[in-house]
Amino acid sequence: MTIRRPQRNPQLNSNGELIHLLSTEGLPKAIIHQILDTAEQFLSVNDREVKKVPLLRGKSVFNLFFENSTRTRTTFEIAAKRLSADVINLDIARSSASKGESLLDTIANLSAMAADMFVVRHAESGAPYLIAQHVAPHVHVVNAGDGRHAHPTQALLDMYTIRHYKKDFTNLTVAIVGDIVHSRVARSNIHALTTLGVPEVRVVGPRTLVPGDLREMGVRVCHSMEEGIKDADVVIMLRLQNERMNGGMLPSSGEFFKEFGLTEAKLALAKPDAIVMHPGPINRGVEIDSAVADGKQSVILPQVTFGIAVRMAVMSILAGNEA
Amino acid sequence: MTIRRPQRNPQLNSNGELIHLLSTEGLPKAIIHQILDTAEQFLSVNDREVKKVPLLRGKSVFNLFFENSTRTRTTFEIAAKRLSADVINLDIARSSASKGESLLDTIANLSAMAADMFVVRHAESGAPYLIAQHVAPHVHVVNAGDGRHAHPTQALLDMYTIRHYKKDFTNLTVAIVGDIVHSRVARSNIHALTTLGVPEVRVVGPRTLVPGDLREMGVRVCHSMEEGIKDADVVIMLRLQNERMNGGMLPSSGEFFKEFGLTEAKLALAKPDAIVMHPGPINRGVEIDSAVADGKQSVILPQVTFGIAVRMAVMSILAGNEA
Amino acid sequence: MTIRRPQRNPQLNSNGELIHLLSTEGLPKAIIHQILDTAEQFLSVNDREVKKVPLLRGKSVFNLFFENSTRTRTTFEIAAKRLSADVINLDIARSSASKGESLLDTIANLSAMAADMFVVRHAESGAPYLIAQHVAPHVHVVNAGDGRHAHPTQALLDMYTIRHYKKDFTNLTVAIVGDIVHSRVARSNIHALTTLGVPEVRVVGPRTLVPGDLREMGVRVCHSMEEGIKDADVVIMLRLQNERMNGGMLPSSGEFFKEFGLTEAKLALAKPDAIVMHPGPINRGVEIDSAVADGKQSVILPQVTFGIAVRMAVMSILAGNEA
Repeated sequence: MTIRRPQRNPQLNSNGELIHLLSTEGLPKAIIHQILDTAEQFLSVNDREVKKVPLLRGKSVFNLFFENSTRTRTTFEIAAKRLSADVINLDIARSSASKGESLLDTIANLSAMAADMFVVRHAESGAPYLIAQHVAPHVHVVNAGDGRHAHPTQALLDMYTIRHYKKDFTNLTVAIVGDIVHSRVARSNIHALTTLGVPEVRVVGPRTLVPGDLREMGVRVCHSMEEGIKDADVVIMLRLQNERMNGGMLPSSGEFFKEFGLTEAKLALAKPDAIVMHPGPINRGVEIDSAVADGKQSVILPQVTFGIAVRMAVMSILAGNEA
Repeated sequence: MTIRRPQRNPQLNSNGELIHLLSTEGLPKAIIHQILDTAEQFLSVNDREVKKVPLLRGKSVFNLFFENSTRTRTTFEIAAKRLSADVINLDIARSSASKGESLLDTIANLSAMAADMFVVRHAESGAPYLIAQHVAPHVHVVNAGDGRHAHPTQALLDMYTIRHYKKDFTNLTVAIVGDIVHSRVARSNIHALTTLGVPEVRVVGPRTLVPGDLREMGVRVCHSMEEGIKDADVVIMLRLQNERMNGGMLPSSGEFFKEFGLTEAKLALAKPDAIVMHPGPINRGVEIDSAVADGKQSVILPQVTFGIAVRMAVMSILAGNEA
Repeated sequence: MTIRRPQRNPQLNSNGELIHLLSTEGLPKAIIHQILDTAEQFLSVNDREVKKVPLLRGKSVFNLFFENSTRTRTTFEIAAKRLSADVINLDIARSSASKGESLLDTIANLSAMAADMFVVRHAESGAPYLIAQHVAPHVHVVNAGDGRHAHPTQALLDMYTIRHYKKDFTNLTVAIVGDIVHSRVARSNIHALTTLGVPEVRVVGPRTLVPGDLREMGVRVCHSMEEGIKDADVVIMLRLQNERMNGGMLPSSGEFFKEFGLTEAKLALAKPDAIVMHPGPINRGVEIDSAVADGKQSVILPQVTFGIAVRMAVMSILAGNEA
């Protein structure tokens, strides 16, 4: 019989301050709002430009991408540079960490190279936790996506976007549509939305992509768009990750679009002022129709800009706290 | 019947100021001289060093290379860093933009990442025009080479080089030698030379590489070096792009060198103070003999240094203008 | 009969100041100590952090990696950025210098791009010498590893580490263990240790990896760990470079570990306060046991931090001297 001791949250120091960002699971509401408030200060009045500030001057941010993702790496690189940090990109997928060195030896070595922060992308769930346990005390770890587990900065920028357009979380219905089972974004969003007090979170898609046991996460499981979208305030479409599917029981992209692709007709089921979000890159005509993606209710491009500001907020808060 | 309306030059705003650099075609003479004058200020007295200035401090320059070109990417990266910009390199050829996203979606996303300038290299002619039409109003586009169409910064650095050594364009004979038909450099140079008032531009090479219909561009077509080089003030040798040829009718590199390779004997046909230029990288013994490439009349290496200053000039002028 | 004229040391100018760092062979003792003294100033009091200083502000450092090595490239990139230089990474192994251009033409072109320093990694011994002979006078060359020949910054950081822990070189016994014959690190360390007055340098390993003619370098050749480690003050373990071996006469990694792998039992033969060093990345269970690598006598991770400071020292000294 295993007895689980209450374990200290590895993301927080003993004062309850953020020292690593690993997941939105267990992230206190006050810290989420601190991140969103901080991000707000980095945006210009028109929400189009992101300020350049000297908060990380003299600090070194290492982008450790064990899995290739140019888009995510770029957003972190931009965020770090707008904080005036030095950025070191390590495309480990393609290179040397291959000389047979273990993950922890690689991390120990990089820690010793005057690093202040590691932004980690890894194909295996939990890798950033392992790294956070082993870095030198002055190094902060940011999870930039680990396997199917979590993608906390994407979730935080989604929260920023929702707060920006809807102000209050406590009266919202949020629908997350598509390939829920393979999506770290869905998982991270569900945790954050729940913490922020959203009363109804729905996950919407075919049984193969939205298994019923997701109900354990406290969400409503919907297998039709009629039920899933109805009266929603926020519709988050996910990318259909063809590359992660194993064929067989899965719908073709044509079938998927017919049933769950977001068209103007389906969007009309939501509240008239509902916003449409997507983590990108979008598959036009697969999970979303161009008329919707480019339509008035779409906030997909503002999400990208908010994402830079949110990543700046996370990094600047981490840099100010000690383990 | 199609009626062409006079279309506004997409490179200029309504005040006639440069907002994108897409081609030397249609680039006003005054703007070319503005670029060359600005470039001059970035060079040290000995023309060997390039100054570091804060003109783009806080701005983000994205190098979007849809086609790989380390050399060109490097020159833009250096130029942007000497202007104190933050530089983001996106080697899109090798990476993710592959997840099936369209060019315009990629551009819209990158625009939203607080970009101020896109330096674009693309294998398809016209891609930078398409991008310039769709970027947010605050983003400037620089064409770093699109298919066979244009390579305007190379042409502008060539103009800088000619002006530096020859002072006045209006009494010159300029010979462009080699693979004209595949060369975006040749095309861009012809436009710029014509705009600047060069009275005689010759294109020189075998019929397969210099078709007669090039005369429509207002140049003299020469199929022998005797005719092509005679009394020239400037000889621009082009790289023989073996990788772009389809075999068959094309000369072997040995044959080419015998007929059109620039040797000291052939160069003696030009004016005694003629300068020899080349966009690099040179093929020694293919289009140019080492004795000429390394000789007194060669200005191939100064071209490289001028190229940094000219790219700085283009970026700093663009950054000062609004759409 | 060839008469060798005394040749000027290509690393020094006529005032005896360092202008290139190519090898520890022929590097004067005073300059080695100047480098170590300078490095010391870049480290924080706890030796964990490396200062950010403006000594190379406005200078451009080009990392020219003709051979891929993410780890070494990263240490130089970090060092240059902590000196406030602009860094241009050129992964030439993977890219364009391939268009048939010669090494010297590539170097001449890059020199013309406002470069101030080249950090060169090349698979062929001597390449950095050739480059140093041909760069423009204002460009400094740092050898970041050339074939089997030299890796001087690794040797200098090893010297820093030894001086840091042992203070005085003139009463030490230093054992270098493992694949000596393929190791540029071993060669560079032997030169530096000899120059600094270490009375006993031992090279230790099987006959296939430590041939007897190494005695010509003034070292003691040992084919057993009992003889090699006994009473040593410093034990430098080398990486077993499987990728460089040709099979056949070489030991398997299991055999090697049994005979020459550093275990706690073997380390007990050395002086009680002996330090254990390794250039990394380590092969646990091949040349070193985890108990030793992670043990109290191991200074492998401090070596990494010292390496950043030593590379900063080399670059800042070079930048201050003229050819």
